[in-house]
Amino acid sequence: MPAPETTATTSPDPAPAHVSVIGLGMMGSALAAALLKAGHQVTVWNRNPAKTGILTAQGAFPAQSPAAAIEAGELTILCLTTYDDVTGLLTPIAASLKGRVLANLTNGTPAQARELAAWTAEQGAAYLDGGIMAVPQMIATPAGYILYSGDERAYEAHRPTLAALGGTRWTGTDPGYAALYDLALLTGMYGMVMGVTQAYAMIRSENIPATDFAPLLADWVTAMTQGAVPGIAAALDSGDHLTDVSSLAVNQAAIGGFLDAFAAQGVSPAFFEPLRDLLDRSVAEGHSADGFSRLVELLGK
Amino acid sequence: MPAPETTATTSPDPAPAHVSVIGLGMMGSALAAALLKAGHQVTVWNRNPAKTGILTAQGAFPAQSPAAAIEAGELTILCLTTYDDVTGLLTPIAASLKGRVLANLTNGTPAQARELAAWTAEQGAAYLDGGIMAVPQMIATPAGYILYSGDERAYEAHRPTLAALGGTRWTGTDPGYAALYDLALLTGMYGMVMGVTQAYAMIRSENIPATDFAPLLADWVTAMTQGAVPGIAAALDSGDHLTDVSSLAVNQAAIGGFLDAFAAQGVSPAFFEPLRDLLDRSVAEGHSADGFSRLVELLGK
Ligand SMILES: NC(=O)c1ccc[n+]([C@@H]2O[C@H](COP(=O)([O-])OP(=O)(O)OC[C@H]3O[C@@H](n4cnc5c(N)ncnc54)[C@H](OP(=O)(O)O)[C@@H]3O)[C@@H](O)[C@H]2O)c1
Ligand SMILES: NC(=O)c1ccc[n+]([C@@H]2O[C@H](COP(=O)([O-])OP(=O)(O)OC[C@H]3O[C@@H](n4cnc5c(N)ncnc54)[C@H](OP(=O)(O)O)[C@@H]3O)[C@@H](O)[C@H]2O)c1
Repeated sequence: MPAPETTATTSPDPAPAHVSVIGLGMMGSALAAALLKAGHQVTVWNRNPAKTGILTAQGAFPAQSPAAAIEAGELTILCLTTYDDVTGLLTPIAASLKGRVLANLTNGTPAQARELAAWTAEQGAAYLDGGIMAVPQMIATPAGYILYSGDERAYEAHRPTLAALGGTRWTGTDPGYAALYDLALLTGMYGMVMGVTQAYAMIRSENIPATDFAPLLADWVTAMTQGAVPGIAAALDSGDHLTDVSSLAVNQAAIGGFLDAFAAQGVSPAFFEPLRDLLDRSVAEGHSADGFSRLVELLGK
Repeated sequence: MPAPETTATTSPDPAPAHVSVIGLGMMGSALAAALLKAGHQVTVWNRNPAKTGILTAQGAFPAQSPAAAIEAGELTILCLTTYDDVTGLLTPIAASLKGRVLANLTNGTPAQARELAAWTAEQGAAYLDGGIMAVPQMIATPAGYILYSGDERAYEAHRPTLAALGGTRWTGTDPGYAALYDLALLTGMYGMVMGVTQAYAMIRSENIPATDFAPLLADWVTAMTQGAVPGIAAALDSGDHLTDVSSLAVNQAAIGGFLDAFAAQGVSPAFFEPLRDLLDRSVAEGHSADGFSRLVELLGK
């Protein structure tokens, strides 16, 4: 797998395309509005038709049905709640998919993306899967980007249009990769959220204002992230887990004291019990001198 | 509590001081070497005398006993493994502490720091507690800093000397604060480590090289940290937990799919089960529309 390529959001004006957007929730509406703003023709459809008004007022064409929307666009973007919603919408209109290009930006798992890609291929459609690394407010700004995988020719053909939504990053022809990267990135974020919320719970157990502590916390977690993320990757790819920074033995010795200190301050230790357990296991299995990269191996076993 | 103040590492040359360092492990040796390099007189003592040689070769004076070291320095820095080690070392020589200044940079909990501060006060010594936010390689570089709390006059008097070790940050006269901040910052880091190791386990479950994914992961977790850390603090201090970014309901709906996807890829979901449980509880208790800041409240209840 090559490293994902990024395209800046400001590509030279592409030829205007005709794009359909199915699903005008918070995210789909932001996608359609960004396409209109970039000068594309946009056809929209939403289950609840009330949500189309704000976009037709900006120049979008309302479609009478999902099939009509797919017919209208050179490219159709789908953004519903779940893959089941997408499958439920497409199955009855399978016959209208032949020769069309679908970009499904609905959130899901690698397995769901692969299943849908296989099914759309059977219908004769080109399939792109996407993972949106942005909230609606970040669409079409440099702060957000979308991961893509699947049909590379369709991606290359429509990349200038997709660039209207923000940065584009290609992850590979395996249609599950965009969902995999998306899931892994959000997983990283959820871990950070556990650490940060626990840190604030400790600070507040002593009635210290959270805003006093926030700059220290943001700077520290950022510095540790910038150091640990490439360090762990290098250890994983080389297979050499020995560390001269922070050994599992040192961390295993420390974590018990952390759990005690949480309890002493009246803060639940629950978020960190699984880390204590895995550190205990890593030392018991002889990995004392290794760094955190060894935990990645143990999580998969 | 005022926001911690930072002093840059490059203060104008302070008058050379006489500092003693007790404990010459990886960290204590780095502290003593930095003080020597900054032009101070340094007396050293270590339980295992073999470790003093490298420092006396750089100009340090070897003390014959901990009491002699404390006698020699205007300020004595302690850096042993645990607070129990510090107490065990100081108790037999309590009589030599009267009028001395101790800066204990050994890692511990707020309760341990407060207990030792109270005991040293009984012996007539001034006590500073410190939390080292650095690995030995970061001592005396702009990348590391040390948190201090306790006797503010002793801190002000010795700050120019302490600046030789890296940035200094004052956290308050409560001797437990440096340990509290230290513990909370490391807690934030441990959460990030859980997220990042889990993310790599997912990526590797598909045999994608970790180094391909590392830049995306580092940038994403950094961006989310920079956004979430001040956002959560503002919500906590205002008491207004309602969010327009990412509601607990949305995250509760998503996390089940994450655990399923971990299991489907053969990756242990253990790190994230407590987050799922707390998100479930937050929604069950009526906090659906709140953001992550609400979890901080729930962790303390
Ligand atoms: N919002 C974000 O910050 C964000 C970020 C990244 C990714 N995403 C992903 O983007 C997707 C959409 O999110 P959103 O925030 O736009 O959600 P939303 O505001 O709740 O909108 C959901 C959309 O899906 C439609 N829908 C749901 N079930 C349907 C069905 N069975 N048939 C037809 N249409 C159906 C809804 O139509 P009705 O209007 O008729 O109900 C609505 O247009 C999700 O997969 C989400 O995970 C969102
Ligand atoms: N290393 C880091 O990255 C780092 C970062 C932040 C904070 N810290 C903290 O700094 C402190 C020292 O860490 P370190 O990395 O220097 O550890 P270390 O290399 O293991 O050194 C431990 C030191 O403590 C001494 N010691 C232990 N028990 C003793 C006792 N009962 N009586 C007398 N001396 C005793 C040891 O003496 P002997 O040589 O005789 O065994 C040695 O000098 C710890 O609290 C650690 O948490 C370390």
